[in-house]
Amino acid sequence: MAKDVHPPRGMRDFLPVEKLKRDIVLNTIRVTYMAHGFQEIETPALEDLERLTSGQGGDNEKLAFRVMKRGAELEAALAASDGEDNLADLGLRYDLTVPLTRYYATNRAKLPKVFKAIQTGPVWRAERPQKGRYRQFVQCDIDIIGDASHLAEIDLLISSLEALEAIHLTDATIRVNHRVLLANLLDGLGVPEDGKPAAMIIIDKLDKIFAEGVVKELGEKFDAKVAETAAGWLATLKSDLETPAELQESFAAVESRFGKGRLRFDPTLVRGMGYYTGTIFEIEHPESGSSIGGGGRYDGMIGRWLGEDVPAVGISIGFERAVDLVPDTFASAAPMRLVLVLDDTTQQTVALALARQKDLFEHGYGVRLEQRPKKLNLLLESLAEQGFTHFATVGVNSNSFESLDIKPIA
Amino acid sequence: MAKDVHPPRGMRDFLPVEKLKRDIVLNTIRVTYMAHGFQEIETPALEDLERLTSGQGGDNEKLAFRVMKRGAELEAALAASDGEDNLADLGLRYDLTVPLTRYYATNRAKLPKVFKAIQTGPVWRAERPQKGRYRQFVQCDIDIIGDASHLAEIDLLISSLEALEAIHLTDATIRVNHRVLLANLLDGLGVPEDGKPAAMIIIDKLDKIFAEGVVKELGEKFDAKVAETAAGWLATLKSDLETPAELQESFAAVESRFGKGRLRFDPTLVRGMGYYTGTIFEIEHPESGSSIGGGGRYDGMIGRWLGEDVPAVGISIGFERAVDLVPDTFASAAPMRLVLVLDDTTQQTVALALARQKDLFEHGYGVRLEQRPKKLNLLLESLAEQGFTHFATVGVNSNSFESLDIKPIA
Repeated sequence: MAKDVHPPRGMRDFLPVEKLKRDIVLNTIRVTYMAHGFQEIETPALEDLERLTSGQGGDNEKLAFRVMKRGAELEAALAASDGEDNLADLGLRYDLTVPLTRYYATNRAKLPKVFKAIQTGPVWRAERPQKGRYRQFVQCDIDIIGDASHLAEIDLLISSLEALEAIHLTDATIRVNHRVLLANLLDGLGVPEDGKPAAMIIIDKLDKIFAEGVVKELGEKFDAKVAETAAGWLATLKSDLETPAELQESFAAVESRFGKGRLRFDPTLVRGMGYYTGTIFEIEHPESGSSIGGGGRYDGMIGRWLGEDVPAVGISIGFERAVDLVPDTFASAAPMRLVLVLDDTTQQTVALALARQKDLFEHGYGVRLEQRPKKLNLLLESLAEQGFTHFATVGVNSNSFESLDIKPIA
Repeated sequence: MAKDVHPPRGMRDFLPVEKLKRDIVLNTIRVTYMAHGFQEIETPALEDLERLTSGQGGDNEKLAFRVMKRGAELEAALAASDGEDNLADLGLRYDLTVPLTRYYATNRAKLPKVFKAIQTGPVWRAERPQKGRYRQFVQCDIDIIGDASHLAEIDLLISSLEALEAIHLTDATIRVNHRVLLANLLDGLGVPEDGKPAAMIIIDKLDKIFAEGVVKELGEKFDAKVAETAAGWLATLKSDLETPAELQESFAAVESRFGKGRLRFDPTLVRGMGYYTGTIFEIEHPESGSSIGGGGRYDGMIGRWLGEDVPAVGISIGFERAVDLVPDTFASAAPMRLVLVLDDTTQQTVALALARQKDLFEHGYGVRLEQRPKKLNLLLESLAEQGFTHFATVGVNSNSFESLDIKPIA
């Protein structure tokens, strides 16, 4: 009797048709980024646990899957009985940013001065599994390290919008804010310096608890005056806002390529991570309830492992959300795929089939060999579901390409 | 001061030029397999630890990286203090075969009756790091599940040889044997049934300890008569061997497509894994000291999780060894890549640069934006090392594609 067999909780198998779509979409994004002069890198799935939990990963640090020590080191750790923290030495990466900053510190001497990186791949988080949230999922990041100018932001924004267009998400827009504007805003509201992180967390909930909720929570956390000032500020938000000086260069550049409307200044955009120092982005799409990507400038982060400050800015497309928005027809432009049915598997028929397969390759077909089953229709129906479009039969008389009767699968 | 920063022991970062070559080589293999009607799948990097250590992974099971339980389950396991085995619940896959058989058992109802799978991706083994052996490395497998006929072996052999040709490894050959022939041989040598696994391990060492060593070890393990018979058999091996009946169909088919010499019958080929039941393969290349791939038929293995026997045969290209044999020039056929140098980053120049970038895209260039540095030559030299071939400058007068002076990087 079959046992109940599944992948681990919160992780997924991909069927061939799903895998094909994912590969084509991811590849389209990568090729677009490469056309913009970004270069792809790869880091291991594992990093030293100490690095993954050094404070740069924010709340995600708690979600790292930890890999147990091995051999004598594990025995020593178990004997010491000084708690679970000493039992693991490696962890699975929970994002691509911590590995990227580590990579840059390791390999800097071999990289261009302005380093434009593409990194795509799976990350792992031990989250409570729920609909649309997985324990292994793909991220798709570009980062520019070593350029403090606004050209870096512009390059990221243009490249991301083109990548989204390339996968037919032409309705994607990007909300933009700047951490300096946020800091000025909080000063204006009368929030004390040490209260700013808490105030940002409250403002970040605007789309969930609305203006009323934000005003209430600010009042509870700080005082009535902060709440009152915030209420006045929030009331002004409904009208069209002028682009502030900090963002004008980026907006003008994106407009010159894409016209108006692809960027939107949003003074309430916060982005959770503490490491952002300048511009912050969040990618939206009308058919998605939550953001499909985001990023920002994080000038302080790389210095940590390098001993000197290096400017950096990155943007990440949330691949799982993006791929769900791409229509399935996007991946159906595969070449003609043909099922070559062998009447039997005698040496002679096999040799003829291999010769015809070669002919068919030269005519641009993908060719799958199959033995003739009792019910040919069932075989062809099943393979049509897998994307095969044509079939032909090979028997003793198939001694030339012309002898093949190539038919579409009905 | 910079800290010493490295990836975890035995694991690698890939620089952009290395990553590009790896991607092109892997993609070429995948596309070749797809043209032969194989379908790509993906499984998670993690599997339940119980499954990874259920006896199907052979010696590799001991090398699995184990992932610690989390939350309340970990606390319970620590409190129980019943040893390390209870502390982990997941493991990183050490090969792609155990996940494939699990995948087939999970998804069988949604797959074609004869399932031709491609699976490529990293696997992890906690081996002692040494030259050419890594703790994270890529495997590249094809398998045919559900076809007991020799057509499956032929399909695998033809597809693998074409994939190797596609990455310019035209000198690759495949050694072939059959487990039934091995069993007959051992009977002929007088090895008792329960001594066969030990005898196979000894014969497998032929290329390391030579005929003399094999005869000596067989004599020690069994008796003088076995040793004497083995000596006589080994002496006959030097001459050209006739292809045995069990392998004739495969040899004839491969010869019909590729001519003679790509397959070689080797009665001493053993392959370590206990699960093989029929034909076994090992891929060789004259420039590699060790095999660059292998596989075989494993009809009994899938039944374990399915409750019924399902025929299966697979072949794996050892990607790390194969990619090292591929000349670097293989990956240099990338499109024209151009560095577009901005004289300054004023709004006007940036808009002109973005417009010229768009023009250049339409003319088939990849285009990387760069600010003019003090020493342009140094920038161009550094980017030439990264594969950029051309450059042009954008300033206030760059208001048309024709105004660009596109030059090769000297």
